[in-house]
Amino acid sequence: MPRKSDARQRAIVTAARLFQRQGYYGTGLAQILEESGAPKGSFYHHFPGGKEQLALEAIHEAARGLESLFAAAAERTEEPGAFVRTLARGVAYWIEASDFTDGCPVAIFTLESTPAAPALQEACRQSYVTWQRLIADGLSRSGGDKARAERLAEMLVGALEGALMLAMAEASTRPIQVIGEELAEHVATVMRPPRE
Amino acid sequence: MPRKSDARQRAIVTAARLFQRQGYYGTGLAQILEESGAPKGSFYHHFPGGKEQLALEAIHEAARGLESLFAAAAERTEEPGAFVRTLARGVAYWIEASDFTDGCPVAIFTLESTPAAPALQEACRQSYVTWQRLIADGLSRSGGDKARAERLAEMLVGALEGALMLAMAEASTRPIQVIGEELAEHVATVMRPPRE
Repeated sequence: MPRKSDARQRAIVTAARLFQRQGYYGTGLAQILEESGAPKGSFYHHFPGGKEQLALEAIHEAARGLESLFAAAAERTEEPGAFVRTLARGVAYWIEASDFTDGCPVAIFTLESTPAAPALQEACRQSYVTWQRLIADGLSRSGGDKARAERLAEMLVGALEGALMLAMAEASTRPIQVIGEELAEHVATVMRPPRE
Repeated sequence: MPRKSDARQRAIVTAARLFQRQGYYGTGLAQILEESGAPKGSFYHHFPGGKEQLALEAIHEAARGLESLFAAAAERTEEPGAFVRTLARGVAYWIEASDFTDGCPVAIFTLESTPAAPALQEACRQSYVTWQRLIADGLSRSGGDKARAERLAEMLVGALEGALMLAMAEASTRPIQVIGEELAEHVATVMRPPRE
């Protein structure tokens, strides 16, 4: 039944956009229903858990967007420093595409979920862990210490998250470029491939 | 008139706490008035600009908290790597003190202000710039390239901001420690003091 599934997906995308711009607590179900055009009955059929379930789906949906971006960068780039530059360019493109309105899709839930909504908090944690794992894999493709790659990947997830925040405040990709270049230099120094 | 000024300060502190946990759009004036115990009349006397003015005051108030922390770290630590470790410890203490509930006080406004509230967005940008300047001053106390210190300071503001986010999601200071150590190593390598 394509129409039902369309309505479900439309509700998730609409909710993700509204949550990101107005916050989780600042967005009511009524607005989500109205903007996604979903009838109330079918909404509760798709989302018996209500707004929290919708938020969980929105986190997963949004996290997958950045997962694809990170995985594609890992596919394309072998050398760790170049990989970090590719990540930074991807993140810069991501925020610029929304005219600096939508940064990290998980950030708003992280801020608003502690301690009131532990299920959302756990979904955020899982997103960060998944991104970290993808980036660690990308960093260690050309060899090098796996444990160090994991620590560097955690730094990259955190630093790119913060860089997105600075980029939003300035409505410019400049902070991402500056921060990305520092991160790339550190990673290139530390993850120098073993001599052949 | 100490009582008036008390009421003003109480409204700002209450609003800052509510904004941080529920978001800007998720927090109504009614709740702020109720929880701060401010009479409506005196509220509009102190905050003729309403909720947006209160948010601006909350951003400034909260930003000053981190300013003191960064300035104190710069006072105490001469060597750039040790300075970064002191910053990371300060930020870890900050988030732990609120039981991982209140991270960067400016983050929520950054996410929710673009593009709807340009005055709030500008206040966020100014907070980040001020923190960056304080940290750049701290980094270049023992000499070294000023321009590089500024780029590193921008990386530190971004990365510590993101580290706070990961710490909230995990309800642990572990990510701040891991990220702080990587940042300290990079900064120590790059800002090595000139040989005497």
